[in-house]
Amino acid sequence: MTMKPSIPKGTRDFSPAEMAKRNYIFDTIREVFRLFGYNPIETPAMENLSTLMGKYGEEGDKLLFKILNSGDFLRGADMKLIEEGNCPKLAPQLCEKGLRYDLTVPFARYVVQHRAELQLPFKRFQIQPVWRADRPQKGRYREFYQCDADVVGSDSLLNEVELVQLIDEVFRRLKIRITLKLNNRKVLAGIAELIGAPDRLIDITVAIDKIDKVGIENVNAELLERGLSQEAVDKLQPILAIGGTLEERLSHLEDLLAESETGSLGVRELREVTEGANRLGLDAELDLDVSLARGLNYYTGTIIEVKAKDVAIGSITGGGRYDNLTGVFGMSGLSGVGISFGADRIYDVLNTLDLYPDDTRTATQVMFVNFGAAEAAASLKMIKELRAAGIACEIYPDAAKMKKQMAYANATAVPFVAMVGETEMAEGKMALKNMATGEQVTVTPAEAAAMIR
Amino acid sequence: MTMKPSIPKGTRDFSPAEMAKRNYIFDTIREVFRLFGYNPIETPAMENLSTLMGKYGEEGDKLLFKILNSGDFLRGADMKLIEEGNCPKLAPQLCEKGLRYDLTVPFARYVVQHRAELQLPFKRFQIQPVWRADRPQKGRYREFYQCDADVVGSDSLLNEVELVQLIDEVFRRLKIRITLKLNNRKVLAGIAELIGAPDRLIDITVAIDKIDKVGIENVNAELLERGLSQEAVDKLQPILAIGGTLEERLSHLEDLLAESETGSLGVRELREVTEGANRLGLDAELDLDVSLARGLNYYTGTIIEVKAKDVAIGSITGGGRYDNLTGVFGMSGLSGVGISFGADRIYDVLNTLDLYPDDTRTATQVMFVNFGAAEAAASLKMIKELRAAGIACEIYPDAAKMKKQMAYANATAVPFVAMVGETEMAEGKMALKNMATGEQVTVTPAEAAAMIR
Repeated sequence: MTMKPSIPKGTRDFSPAEMAKRNYIFDTIREVFRLFGYNPIETPAMENLSTLMGKYGEEGDKLLFKILNSGDFLRGADMKLIEEGNCPKLAPQLCEKGLRYDLTVPFARYVVQHRAELQLPFKRFQIQPVWRADRPQKGRYREFYQCDADVVGSDSLLNEVELVQLIDEVFRRLKIRITLKLNNRKVLAGIAELIGAPDRLIDITVAIDKIDKVGIENVNAELLERGLSQEAVDKLQPILAIGGTLEERLSHLEDLLAESETGSLGVRELREVTEGANRLGLDAELDLDVSLARGLNYYTGTIIEVKAKDVAIGSITGGGRYDNLTGVFGMSGLSGVGISFGADRIYDVLNTLDLYPDDTRTATQVMFVNFGAAEAAASLKMIKELRAAGIACEIYPDAAKMKKQMAYANATAVPFVAMVGETEMAEGKMALKNMATGEQVTVTPAEAAAMIR
Repeated sequence: MTMKPSIPKGTRDFSPAEMAKRNYIFDTIREVFRLFGYNPIETPAMENLSTLMGKYGEEGDKLLFKILNSGDFLRGADMKLIEEGNCPKLAPQLCEKGLRYDLTVPFARYVVQHRAELQLPFKRFQIQPVWRADRPQKGRYREFYQCDADVVGSDSLLNEVELVQLIDEVFRRLKIRITLKLNNRKVLAGIAELIGAPDRLIDITVAIDKIDKVGIENVNAELLERGLSQEAVDKLQPILAIGGTLEERLSHLEDLLAESETGSLGVRELREVTEGANRLGLDAELDLDVSLARGLNYYTGTIIEVKAKDVAIGSITGGGRYDNLTGVFGMSGLSGVGISFGADRIYDVLNTLDLYPDDTRTATQVMFVNFGAAEAAASLKMIKELRAAGIACEIYPDAAKMKKQMAYANATAVPFVAMVGETEMAEGKMALKNMATGEQVTVTPAEAAAMIR
């Protein structure tokens, strides 16, 4: 007996209805990327494992999907490792390639590999799936899409201003109300200096990044656990408690960090980005969040995170500036800044709020009923005319019972049904029924095209 | 020292210029799929190996990219196989998943898995990459895109007529002149009957499929080698030599196969499809080719293959009818017919003939020169207006030397450059330079938008 087939856990099939919704999101993001002067690239699903390993930390290495070498994959394998059952060390001997884990490392690899052909600054976008061998759970998949835009080869904060505008425009079009949180790695460094622990920046950011999730008490406990002094933790409190308007908080932070050159520079950068973006007008609410570090350690300047106001779902977009992304591939001194839209979370937000336009399901617009060979032939001629006018049509392929054909029309939610019987054939017309209103008219293909459009 | 990074052999990066060309192809195919009432689906890159294995023959199993299980992948492995170095048998013990090899098997799996939600007939299209561990060579990649359209759940030949029309429309839009070859598996069965070797259908089709490549003498030699009698081979000759117009060849074939019920049915089907398609008008040349078998053994009726007239590159599209695609997954009696566009070969044809529209490179339309902070701020306001009008703009992010900025504009082939200096700022205007003609005018953003559009 054959088992009902399935797909690997953490992966998904997308039906036509789901595809229509997802394409609405991708098309919106893609169009805004284009308007902002970003150009598409694509990289292979498989990268050399040497490109991927060591770029996402030890945990990340474990989450890489590795591809078994073809043919005699045991050739290069160390039998001792097999006997010991040392899978982590054995895997790279059996596998030369792995699946893309994100779009950032492949982009860095792309820039270095193609540097001779690239015109800097290089603005690229990339919308492709990535794969992670994570434990699947609600909202977390093993295959999911990322939508990234980055510019490399320019230090200008104008890039940040533009990216904030870009994010605002995407969510304005998607009708999702957002809070756009900003921080700056230099501010975090300034804070570390201020509390007398300049070498503990990583410990501090890892701990305070969790403030929204676990609260200030737990953050303080973790800081002490990580070896910070009580005095340092005490000094940190007024900074984490800064309140007021964006301008008030920037001024307050400026005063608190006046002693730190790096910290002051960070505040100036934040001010330039927020003022530049606000000057042009934003739908999004801009927010300064000094606890924002986004876990990642490669950001060196601006840090960006977006949350939906009306759905509790975590970050739906994030990004920042990195000053040495391509350094691991032997090309240093190239500064970049970029953002990544989380398509799957945005999909969940749109589903929760039901924010899709009414015409999102853009399938067939007219289904022709099939009354037999002669009528079908006449229908096909009219269909050809309608298609030339850009209208998606189909004819029911079999001369089945009317009831069956109409059941198909209803199930596929076709907005119009056309019937070409003997009378209509003689007149070169069709009976066109609007499935929503029930209204029916007898029209020529040209008239039908005008009505449907 | 860091090595210059690379990508796995047989895979490719696509630059913005290449993406523009490829998207032109995909968008054209996607739009025609839509006009013909096909709906998009997507399936995961990874399928369970049990879904893929045994579906592409022994050779195909070897060409599957297999994904090493996460964690302790040695757990289920038979140590004896390791000691023997029996990689083919060991691989499925180390790997549960593999990369999609084509779009047909995942589609069959999709139909069976989701049968409860599907409305039959189900018309779907799918444009996604597939992966094969083939030896890379010119025009053959390890990662490449397929563009498939299939309808399942209908026996009607109207589907074939529509698919021929669809193929014709795609290549008409792409401006590629084609020959569309048709055959029918039942005709091949009739031929096998006629020459007294009805049980040797596979041997016959495998051999005669190569007639274009190796010539009739070599085909005959292979047939004898495969154990067919000289008498059978002699009987085959007049069939392979059929000439004349399409109608003449159909009539000739009808006479030759009159004794075979299956063969006669095949000819009637061919006639219905060719007449139906021709009645609506075709740009493509329709051709009957009794040597056409397309290697694959799952076609049961119509067989379709498309060749470009002006470039020698093999088949650029193919397809046919299969009566039991879902049978391997336990769901029998479902007939389907489909076609697959070979995007990479079509890309090569378009490149060879240089058939891309002039505006294929749809990147930034206007680059604003950056003269400093105040001018940049004024420029950004105008840019916002232009973008709202659908025009892709960017500002050079740094106030670099004019020469450098213009070099960037030239290298990225921006059609317009806008300059907002002090005078223009005061007037709320920009100096807009047409880079092709050198013409320069001073205009408001609204006037600029009208000019550029």
